[in-house]
Amino acid sequence: MQEHVADGHQSASAAARAANERALQILFSGDPVLVDIRPAIDVLPGLTRDTVLTSGPPLPWNAYSGGQRQALLGGVVYEGLAPDLATADKALDAGDVRIAGCHDYSCVGSLAGVTTASMPVLVVEDRNTGHRGHCTLFEGAASARLNYGVYDDAVQQNLEYLAEVIGPALGGLVRSIEGGLAVRPMMERALRQGDELHSRNTAASLLFLQAIVPSLIELDGPAARELTRYMTSGDYFFLRVSMAACKSMADRMYGVEGSSIVTAMAFSCKEFGIRVAGHGDRWFRGPLPTAEEFRLFDGHGPEDIEVMGGESPITEVCGLGGLAQAAAFPLQAYQGGSPQRMVERNLQMYGITAGEHPTFKIPYLQYRGTPAGIDVHRVVASGVTPLMDVGIAGRAGGQIGAGCFRAPLEPFRAAANALSLSPA
Amino acid sequence: MQEHVADGHQSASAAARAANERALQILFSGDPVLVDIRPAIDVLPGLTRDTVLTSGPPLPWNAYSGGQRQALLGGVVYEGLAPDLATADKALDAGDVRIAGCHDYSCVGSLAGVTTASMPVLVVEDRNTGHRGHCTLFEGAASARLNYGVYDDAVQQNLEYLAEVIGPALGGLVRSIEGGLAVRPMMERALRQGDELHSRNTAASLLFLQAIVPSLIELDGPAARELTRYMTSGDYFFLRVSMAACKSMADRMYGVEGSSIVTAMAFSCKEFGIRVAGHGDRWFRGPLPTAEEFRLFDGHGPEDIEVMGGESPITEVCGLGGLAQAAAFPLQAYQGGSPQRMVERNLQMYGITAGEHPTFKIPYLQYRGTPAGIDVHRVVASGVTPLMDVGIAGRAGGQIGAGCFRAPLEPFRAAANALSLSPA
Repeated sequence: MQEHVADGHQSASAAARAANERALQILFSGDPVLVDIRPAIDVLPGLTRDTVLTSGPPLPWNAYSGGQRQALLGGVVYEGLAPDLATADKALDAGDVRIAGCHDYSCVGSLAGVTTASMPVLVVEDRNTGHRGHCTLFEGAASARLNYGVYDDAVQQNLEYLAEVIGPALGGLVRSIEGGLAVRPMMERALRQGDELHSRNTAASLLFLQAIVPSLIELDGPAARELTRYMTSGDYFFLRVSMAACKSMADRMYGVEGSSIVTAMAFSCKEFGIRVAGHGDRWFRGPLPTAEEFRLFDGHGPEDIEVMGGESPITEVCGLGGLAQAAAFPLQAYQGGSPQRMVERNLQMYGITAGEHPTFKIPYLQYRGTPAGIDVHRVVASGVTPLMDVGIAGRAGGQIGAGCFRAPLEPFRAAANALSLSPA
Repeated sequence: MQEHVADGHQSASAAARAANERALQILFSGDPVLVDIRPAIDVLPGLTRDTVLTSGPPLPWNAYSGGQRQALLGGVVYEGLAPDLATADKALDAGDVRIAGCHDYSCVGSLAGVTTASMPVLVVEDRNTGHRGHCTLFEGAASARLNYGVYDDAVQQNLEYLAEVIGPALGGLVRSIEGGLAVRPMMERALRQGDELHSRNTAASLLFLQAIVPSLIELDGPAARELTRYMTSGDYFFLRVSMAACKSMADRMYGVEGSSIVTAMAFSCKEFGIRVAGHGDRWFRGPLPTAEEFRLFDGHGPEDIEVMGGESPITEVCGLGGLAQAAAFPLQAYQGGSPQRMVERNLQMYGITAGEHPTFKIPYLQYRGTPAGIDVHRVVASGVTPLMDVGIAGRAGGQIGAGCFRAPLEPFRAAANALSLSPA
């Protein structure tokens, strides 16, 4: 009854809580299914051939620097929109080629996140509502990749191979599976096998392979061999599936009026931004995340680190990654940390989320649901911001390590203020 | 220098320590490779068509009771050595069919462990020495299985299917892989994915599938389909591979004079027994293990539990299973326990082992090697006996649960005494 007392603040809080409950119900009811793999132009709503998508709250072309800028230039050349990097620069300057944010096209990007019209993207659809999320394919195990700021002959050939061989073959295979491939059960199982589905996707990639083997053996020899080679070339195939699935789940919360639940976290080379359910596609921006703990591959030092953007924190939005570290103790070897710190951090995250996931569970925490539904009010009140497990790019391009990063407080403050100005 | 003082006890201890070091070096150098799958008669040294192997230190026929007796009778009929169970009983009584222990035939059995001449067995070979361990194939996910004391039409048909379809197909596939399938790397990886390789083999089974996919896609359609169906029908395929691999590793320690390291732990329906390196194939016997913690499937109570034997504790001998519980928190859901108790128990096991495994590592313990090389002297001195994660059979046959069991102290005392009577 207390909640119904006609006190302005109390009343707003009750309404906000109800709004957050609605948002959480939407988030938790997501049933992502991989239904297709198609060129971006065929499936991303509104995408044009002369648009290049990238990670983070969008910036004017000249604000992009370093590896993200290199990746964008590479994307323009790869797409055939310019014959070389210098011409690509002019075309972007002149606005003949447009830059836009992945998030505005039902898509999320890994690191620089460059997504162009002809690149194959995973199409993950919510079974109940048809709401879709998309993400490009895993580029393979090579350290030099477009989204780590490298565009050279090897990268170009690999992108062509993905577009011409892997995308069509895997797309055909997925389409041959009636009803598509249910992603959520794989995610649930992977959390019991040492993955947090952001920086560790080892088990999920195996589970995905297991799920497609019955279809894989029906392909003709060459296609089966190519797909097998690709699917067994690294442990990160599933990350893109996880990201597309999370995008499909999180996006459905957009527009829940008055809700302070975070629906997106993403960064460019310059800024970090969040979206909240109560403010649709508006970005609340702030400075870049700070490194809390990280581990670099041999031969690299902290001075080599360069931020190139990233939208994989959509996994944290859904209660995974940095919010599920206690499910993934093997991450120590990849991004540093100790089991004790991983558990402490994971427990800390329960303080800033509005709920606990009903089926994403952490064995070490006695199958407690992961903290899910980051609440900007809880973040502001506690001063504790979300943790994100992310790959680290180097100044010279390529991946040089991985780590656990802490989001800045500013965007959460800005979002909380905006919500208080437009109470539910 | 203290160790070289000419005190009788000290001197014996020094010699015993050196013997244990040798045994551990042998254990840790094991490089098990799956090289074949063949009918037992073709590969188990000395096996005859009229011998039926079973779990545990061997007993006279009339001492076998309950499910293990039923399984043995079923094995005799399945093998065509008698037309029905009653005649099988007479044949065993008359000695026309012989019973022997799996362990004496380079083999280990799951639960009742019934292994007959025509049953396909996994052939796991140490790469460096050619030393082999064997185990029958996973019988599938059905609760009613021969080794859980059931022999009926469905069990018979399933055994025939394994012998006629799966064994030959998987054997052919394994033989087509040059150099065989290295098992140890899969085991090392699985420990980072929530398995302890005794009661949990979920990740290892996936890793095995991943390893054979390149060969699987080269098979013709029907064989590929049958194998795929079998390999994806449950999470326990790899347990038998793990057991055969551990047998191949542990057996090489037999005959290290003066060593008090355990080389086998196994039980029948009546007794638990161990072997130690310094006493070759001699069994030291004692009462059955006691339940420390367990979980039964719905509809079953403790009064339904029946011991039918088991040799899967060969995994504990190699530093897995109950000695690696902190690698497998998801086991809670299967056999009970809490993460805290699993960690405590795992740490306790370091007190009774002579070493830590160099490559079987536990992420939660900051990649500490698993406790490995159970030392009967340490067991006797501490009164702490090994823990074993085992499946639980029911009086009516079939699996009804799983749990963590504690070995009895008596066989360790007997082995320690025998070693003290024949000092190194």
